[in-house]
Amino acid sequence: MKKTLLVYILLISAFALYVLRYEYSSEANGSWEDRGLRGDIGETYIMITFQSGLEYWKSVLKGFEDAGDTLGVTVEYRGATRYDPKEQTTIIEQAIARKPAGIAISAIDPQSLIPVINKALDADIPVVLFDADAPGSRAYSFLGTDNYQAGVTAADKMAELMGREGEVAVLTMPGQQNHEERTQGFRDTIKQQYPSMKVVEVADGHGDVMRSRDEAMRLMKAYPKLGGIFVTEATGAAGVGEAVQNAKAGEPFQIISFDTNKDTLDMIKSGTISATIAQGTWNMGYWSLQYLFHLHHQLTVPAPSSSDENAPLPVKVDTGISVVTRSNVDDYYAK
Amino acid sequence: MKKTLLVYILLISAFALYVLRYEYSSEANGSWEDRGLRGDIGETYIMITFQSGLEYWKSVLKGFEDAGDTLGVTVEYRGATRYDPKEQTTIIEQAIARKPAGIAISAIDPQSLIPVINKALDADIPVVLFDADAPGSRAYSFLGTDNYQAGVTAADKMAELMGREGEVAVLTMPGQQNHEERTQGFRDTIKQQYPSMKVVEVADGHGDVMRSRDEAMRLMKAYPKLGGIFVTEATGAAGVGEAVQNAKAGEPFQIISFDTNKDTLDMIKSGTISATIAQGTWNMGYWSLQYLFHLHHQLTVPAPSSSDENAPLPVKVDTGISVVTRSNVDDYYAK
Repeated sequence: MKKTLLVYILLISAFALYVLRYEYSSEANGSWEDRGLRGDIGETYIMITFQSGLEYWKSVLKGFEDAGDTLGVTVEYRGATRYDPKEQTTIIEQAIARKPAGIAISAIDPQSLIPVINKALDADIPVVLFDADAPGSRAYSFLGTDNYQAGVTAADKMAELMGREGEVAVLTMPGQQNHEERTQGFRDTIKQQYPSMKVVEVADGHGDVMRSRDEAMRLMKAYPKLGGIFVTEATGAAGVGEAVQNAKAGEPFQIISFDTNKDTLDMIKSGTISATIAQGTWNMGYWSLQYLFHLHHQLTVPAPSSSDENAPLPVKVDTGISVVTRSNVDDYYAK
Repeated sequence: MKKTLLVYILLISAFALYVLRYEYSSEANGSWEDRGLRGDIGETYIMITFQSGLEYWKSVLKGFEDAGDTLGVTVEYRGATRYDPKEQTTIIEQAIARKPAGIAISAIDPQSLIPVINKALDADIPVVLFDADAPGSRAYSFLGTDNYQAGVTAADKMAELMGREGEVAVLTMPGQQNHEERTQGFRDTIKQQYPSMKVVEVADGHGDVMRSRDEAMRLMKAYPKLGGIFVTEATGAAGVGEAVQNAKAGEPFQIISFDTNKDTLDMIKSGTISATIAQGTWNMGYWSLQYLFHLHHQLTVPAPSSSDENAPLPVKVDTGISVVTRSNVDDYYAK
């Protein structure tokens, strides 16, 4: 009698275990509706840049990694060490050979990478571009900053800081498209929106600390009433900060920088730089991975296998900018 | 002895059950990493348009619903029945009163809805805009078509269909911004890219079948060598199709339409209309819900609670277009 009871209990327990195990596994392997948006740890997505040493990529990679964690997939980062199209091409070719679930690329220039990007697509590996576009390629999407709009925002901030009057200068890298666009947005806005302000000169800082410092010195001498400088890139901003500390100690002078490297953030904290324009770098990485995930899992409408004339994903995404000042600078140090 | 064994077995079974139940529940309630991107069925997201009867919204809503299914949340649709800013404002106010997890809005015009959109944000309800923007509002993002670029694509397709030579006309709705942009993209491209082609006239079809048919008749009479018409909206395209069937039976004549209502698709199938430009409507709905979900769950960097000067999400998304011809028309009938 007791033996029979024992057998019953064992059978009932085994059945209960089986039911629970089944519930559990259907949760993990069912449709998207049952288990949420989640991939497989065996799916690998690769992010590739040029100049891998740049601090700038850190936050893009953080967004890429965060999306990878959220979606339960594996991410990797590869970067050409130098500013060299051939090196970046080789790295993309190595990535293709590994047949990943998708590749996100920041293109070293608009032309050089088009053949290797198309090669990835021919191998059915989805590609999206972020930060720097290659407009002639067949990549599905570009996610990056609207640089003209960033210049507009810088001008509005400069006007706010200077009480909407006075002389300003721009320190930039002439000939580089993104810097030209930032400069143009700034100039147009000052001219059209702020009649009591004037852009007295656009100078070349060569993206270099020393040369930007020297140019800032020259500008402050040439225009004694100069009240502010917009520096369109982060490296030179440190030099401008140094020059202004020396020449204008105690006097009001506004510097607006671009991007959020540590030197710039430190100078915002100390009050030398008034503001900087932070690009939506986390968004570039995060939504690049989301897009690749949706392509890999055929979750788009129309499907990614359609002809070149179809757009399965948003084709161009303005990832936005944020204005960093002393009040929110702590949020922008790399974590 | 047997009793003791029985007790042991019961205890072990209970423990096994407890462990499995725990595994199962942590799967459902753990961090994003454990369970994938998934919300709660109690979360409600609302999509709101004007003119709810338009066939055009169907595919946007499908994208919104698909994202809702994928993310395990509830979606609802509300539309003003008429083309009336007051009615749409009332519907948005009713939505705010229900404290949803987020609202996606297509704005009836750029100005009217700004106060009510900002009211939603003041109540901590995330808002994104799709299809039609309200640029002065504090909504986090706009997802829609780059209409100038759509006109460029229409021109390239027209050139391809006409062998890159001949006279073309445009039938549009002058004064409406999206139609002006489509027309401008088309004109600029023909002028700059196709020296053997010419836009002979831009006429007003009033978005009406009869008036568009009459205008098409007049154009074909006035320009006997006319080889194609680009119609920037779908309703009039049916009238143009009718006119061309009557006047040019058997002769080659190219019509390119816009959007994918049933009449247009039927005329593509029958060969009367050569191609139409499909907007990325599914993308508008799908990514609107994704964005609202990320705002509601504070998954963005920077966080959505930050100041106006921060962009937690991509601020502007070009949802892309697709070219629909006889070869892929079956994919575009509403499912």
